[in-house]
Amino acid sequence: MPASKRSGRTERIPVAVLGVTGSVGQRFVQLLENHPWFRLHEAVASERSAGKKYGEAADWRLGTLMPRAAASLTVKDLGADLESRLVFSGLDSSVAGEAEDLYANRGCVVVSNSHNHRMDDDVPLLIPELNAEHVDAVEKQQKRRGSRGYIVTNPNCSTVGLAMAIAPVERLYGIDQIHVTTMQAISGAGYAGVASYAILDNVIPFISGEEEKIESEPRKILGRWTNGKFENAPFRISAQTNRVPTIDGHLMTISLSLRKRDENFLEKVRQAIENFSGEPQRLGLPSAPKRALHYIEDKDRPQPRLDRDRERGMSVSTNG
Amino acid sequence: MPASKRSGRTERIPVAVLGVTGSVGQRFVQLLENHPWFRLHEAVASERSAGKKYGEAADWRLGTLMPRAAASLTVKDLGADLESRLVFSGLDSSVAGEAEDLYANRGCVVVSNSHNHRMDDDVPLLIPELNAEHVDAVEKQQKRRGSRGYIVTNPNCSTVGLAMAIAPVERLYGIDQIHVTTMQAISGAGYAGVASYAILDNVIPFISGEEEKIESEPRKILGRWTNGKFENAPFRISAQTNRVPTIDGHLMTISLSLRKRDENFLEKVRQAIENFSGEPQRLGLPSAPKRALHYIEDKDRPQPRLDRDRERGMSVSTNG
Amino acid sequence: MPASKRSGRTERIPVAVLGVTGSVGQRFVQLLENHPWFRLHEAVASERSAGKKYGEAADWRLGTLMPRAAASLTVKDLGADLESRLVFSGLDSSVAGEAEDLYANRGCVVVSNSHNHRMDDDVPLLIPELNAEHVDAVEKQQKRRGSRGYIVTNPNCSTVGLAMAIAPVERLYGIDQIHVTTMQAISGAGYAGVASYAILDNVIPFISGEEEKIESEPRKILGRWTNGKFENAPFRISAQTNRVPTIDGHLMTISLSLRKRDENFLEKVRQAIENFSGEPQRLGLPSAPKRALHYIEDKDRPQPRLDRDRERGMSVSTNG
Amino acid sequence: MPASKRSGRTERIPVAVLGVTGSVGQRFVQLLENHPWFRLHEAVASERSAGKKYGEAADWRLGTLMPRAAASLTVKDLGADLESRLVFSGLDSSVAGEAEDLYANRGCVVVSNSHNHRMDDDVPLLIPELNAEHVDAVEKQQKRRGSRGYIVTNPNCSTVGLAMAIAPVERLYGIDQIHVTTMQAISGAGYAGVASYAILDNVIPFISGEEEKIESEPRKILGRWTNGKFENAPFRISAQTNRVPTIDGHLMTISLSLRKRDENFLEKVRQAIENFSGEPQRLGLPSAPKRALHYIEDKDRPQPRLDRDRERGMSVSTNG
Repeated sequence: MPASKRSGRTERIPVAVLGVTGSVGQRFVQLLENHPWFRLHEAVASERSAGKKYGEAADWRLGTLMPRAAASLTVKDLGADLESRLVFSGLDSSVAGEAEDLYANRGCVVVSNSHNHRMDDDVPLLIPELNAEHVDAVEKQQKRRGSRGYIVTNPNCSTVGLAMAIAPVERLYGIDQIHVTTMQAISGAGYAGVASYAILDNVIPFISGEEEKIESEPRKILGRWTNGKFENAPFRISAQTNRVPTIDGHLMTISLSLRKRDENFLEKVRQAIENFSGEPQRLGLPSAPKRALHYIEDKDRPQPRLDRDRERGMSVSTNG
Repeated sequence: MPASKRSGRTERIPVAVLGVTGSVGQRFVQLLENHPWFRLHEAVASERSAGKKYGEAADWRLGTLMPRAAASLTVKDLGADLESRLVFSGLDSSVAGEAEDLYANRGCVVVSNSHNHRMDDDVPLLIPELNAEHVDAVEKQQKRRGSRGYIVTNPNCSTVGLAMAIAPVERLYGIDQIHVTTMQAISGAGYAGVASYAILDNVIPFISGEEEKIESEPRKILGRWTNGKFENAPFRISAQTNRVPTIDGHLMTISLSLRKRDENFLEKVRQAIENFSGEPQRLGLPSAPKRALHYIEDKDRPQPRLDRDRERGMSVSTNG
Repeated sequence: MPASKRSGRTERIPVAVLGVTGSVGQRFVQLLENHPWFRLHEAVASERSAGKKYGEAADWRLGTLMPRAAASLTVKDLGADLESRLVFSGLDSSVAGEAEDLYANRGCVVVSNSHNHRMDDDVPLLIPELNAEHVDAVEKQQKRRGSRGYIVTNPNCSTVGLAMAIAPVERLYGIDQIHVTTMQAISGAGYAGVASYAILDNVIPFISGEEEKIESEPRKILGRWTNGKFENAPFRISAQTNRVPTIDGHLMTISLSLRKRDENFLEKVRQAIENFSGEPQRLGLPSAPKRALHYIEDKDRPQPRLDRDRERGMSVSTNG
Repeated sequence: MPASKRSGRTERIPVAVLGVTGSVGQRFVQLLENHPWFRLHEAVASERSAGKKYGEAADWRLGTLMPRAAASLTVKDLGADLESRLVFSGLDSSVAGEAEDLYANRGCVVVSNSHNHRMDDDVPLLIPELNAEHVDAVEKQQKRRGSRGYIVTNPNCSTVGLAMAIAPVERLYGIDQIHVTTMQAISGAGYAGVASYAILDNVIPFISGEEEKIESEPRKILGRWTNGKFENAPFRISAQTNRVPTIDGHLMTISLSLRKRDENFLEKVRQAIENFSGEPQRLGLPSAPKRALHYIEDKDRPQPRLDRDRERGMSVSTNG
């Protein structure tokens, strides 16, 4: 299926990015540069940016240079008809709900980073390493929409770390109750999300809406799509979220009560973490980390600054 | 009893400080300056400093100036005979155990910040706001020593925050299980305890020995001295400790399961926190905070930088 | 003249604060609470806040609580007639120029923290410790306006530190050339002025408009008001400004070439710094620091965190 | 000459590292791993580590894993006879002076990062991009020693940035006077060099011995080896050094007075920076950056966090 396997770069799949000037949108643009399968074909943003060249419309904040091909694209207005069928959405949640529905109803495949549709009854909330089979829900969604279009979503950034870390334990022993405390980096709030005057020499023990996401999303992700509906995993989660003065890398402490345990369960969990592999690894997808889960021996690890860049930032490091 | 009530400053009680050059020792020296009841009479440290003037022996690290009277004291060797009966110990744990026993056996009242004797069978582990009555254990200790001397201890710095915060809840409803995650400031490790290269833009999820202290000390503190022995409070504690890049002020998230609850229990706990008062407040002790516990409305509080100096740093701020 | 000397608090002078919801305006409100001479009588802000109670209109960011009397004031629209003759302006520079002229022309005494009128031909730019006699320019200003009203200004925050530090040297020996590099705290940019993502683990070697201010303002301040005009001090200044990750306290390195020097000039400069006293000290003004200039022995001082709170933050610490 | 050009990895040149357990020594070990020309053959350290395996003796602090081959080397005692002729020295300055002389006198080529011999009359102080021809001094040094061995040194880390940045200007116009203020990262002080309690929310305006190095070393580097001696470049340097809370990357402001100037001199300097190339670039040395000097347009650059990793940290970024 990937274009690159057929006849090289010229046939890469054209994609659109919604909310292309924002921090998530910029990340999509960055990741699409040199992607073997996809190429950025359409840049979409709110009225304020529409009609401008992307190079002028975006206040580029990432460490790498803005891709030249992107800079010369003319930004389209949110709601405009698109030529791309595949659409990545980095829209702000204030507009994502409606706009993503609009494009899905028109036949687009919308891959969204926004939280609006994550908990919808027929929308997959995907961590491909864990629940690739949830894409089966798409068929029901397409029927509802009367369209070949649909939405799939990815979770809150802290949810990813939590769900990945507990998945091997849930599978081996079953989890009854989870207490999690996060220490989240400022990058999670976007470029201007946290004022330095608020966070220097400080910790802020509150992130708006974050605890609700962390307490609900992992249950959907580790649950099952069965008989035409999602069945949540049975564990309960109690989350407390904090913003700490780190640039990148969310750290969390997780305390689990198991449904059962046996001898050497710590050792078995550890082996499960080290042997963990998911669908993206089996398919050899081009952006997938080699290993999505790592176990680090040292009792003072993982540390955000030392472990955040493992596997280009796409892996979860654990210790316990 | 306080000297100051009898006839003014000249009769303040003479005291000695053990480990007087270290960071805890320096803090004792600072707090004793201008104290209405006590005056620093003897400065005691290891062989390396003994014989020198305190002004030369100590590498003074505190924000205020070194008290002049202290600077001119000649440092005595640890183990030397002391004229003071009251002794404050800021000794490193590598030597505190033996040295504190030595002085208690010789008849001194040793008030220790070290962890060595905290869990001893007949040594009070005091937060005066919570368990002043534990001093009754001293009588048994004196018998064991065959001396009028004894040791009393204060807890680990994170234990204080945890024990104070949960005490009103324990008294109202009884606590079954506690999950606590700390985010501790670098000051807790002493001046040179944490290298900046280790902690800048980082969190270190391990503090040696800290979890053990936090999991045991509150149970003794909130327990009872009865029938000649300490009976621990019945709750269990699971602690995870982290070092974060803040200068001062330990923050922690606490998750409690209660033995019972009733309507409006959150409101009742809150009132209990706001009405909380302990023995130091009743006695009007000169160093005691007016209120040792505060409840802060805003959901993004307490924050270390904004709340650590409340009541000269001697109070615990909560929200929940 | 001070009200408090006549008959107590009830007759304190009523004052207005322009731009009362911003960070400078909030600081005015804070400093006016319990001021012995002044009381906040009118709160003035832009249309967006006008008509609301100050307690609702302001997103209070300071460490102390919002003064109750201020909270209940109804915010007046910028441009509205005022009852107070004395007006403190914390307006943003986008509106300060016109609005301050307006009130001065109507007869108000406008004390401004904005830069718009600082370099005007007949507007004093005051550091009362250094150039109190520049208020003589007010007479000419009143004539121009045909009003008893006028504007006086205070300098850029970094200018204050530089001008104070070099004043004793300029007076003793005359300065030819100044090279100054600033390392400025984030507080100088206002609450949301610097994103944490920009400044954590970083230094930003640019502050918009800052070098121009630092290169010009000290020359006016240390110059003279003579024959009806300001004559700049003759030295030249080359400034490079940097934002560093500190909360409060601007540090700067200053390199001076002197017009002359003599034996022991370092010692003489130092004595001049230690003996420095200005008009506010002579008058014993209620907000004035006891000593506006300090010389610190240790070669690794001043340091922002250790020295910024000296004299309630209103003094300059030097070493050299 | 390079082994790799002859017949592959097995014949790489064996080298020794002195002070191999320290932070500079660890960096040598890291850079030697997979080096095409050199292989770590001998690990040398003080008595305390001698006889142990390197894997046990070193408290490895770098982000990458300790190279396996290094871990299994037995550490030799400083002073022991070595099989390698090429020796890299990361010794502490307390022992470097004598030990480096010792090995040079025995016939070794000692490449030193320590400051002890930098200013010696016949020891090159090299930035290969700038003064590769200073190696001619080695001949005189060999005569003095009566040995084929010799010492070459590299400069203080801040000197490198300063010398590189000013070299194109010195060559084009000649420099009369330099004022430089550094804002140096904590990494420059070694792993435990700066306590977090000292530097968090702070700047320390003093680094022991640093100003002296920065004021002298660039004059030797940009000078000439002529008639059997070093002739310093004629400019004067006034340096003020500061430690700021950044992890890596030294930033400095530089103010220059030129001996002459012409039209468009800023543009010409800029072109010289962009066209700059040195001996390592001409030779295509395996560790050399492609471009050792960069000019960045944006007026708020360079910034330590954004620009420090350019060319694997081996380039200097400028703006002016």
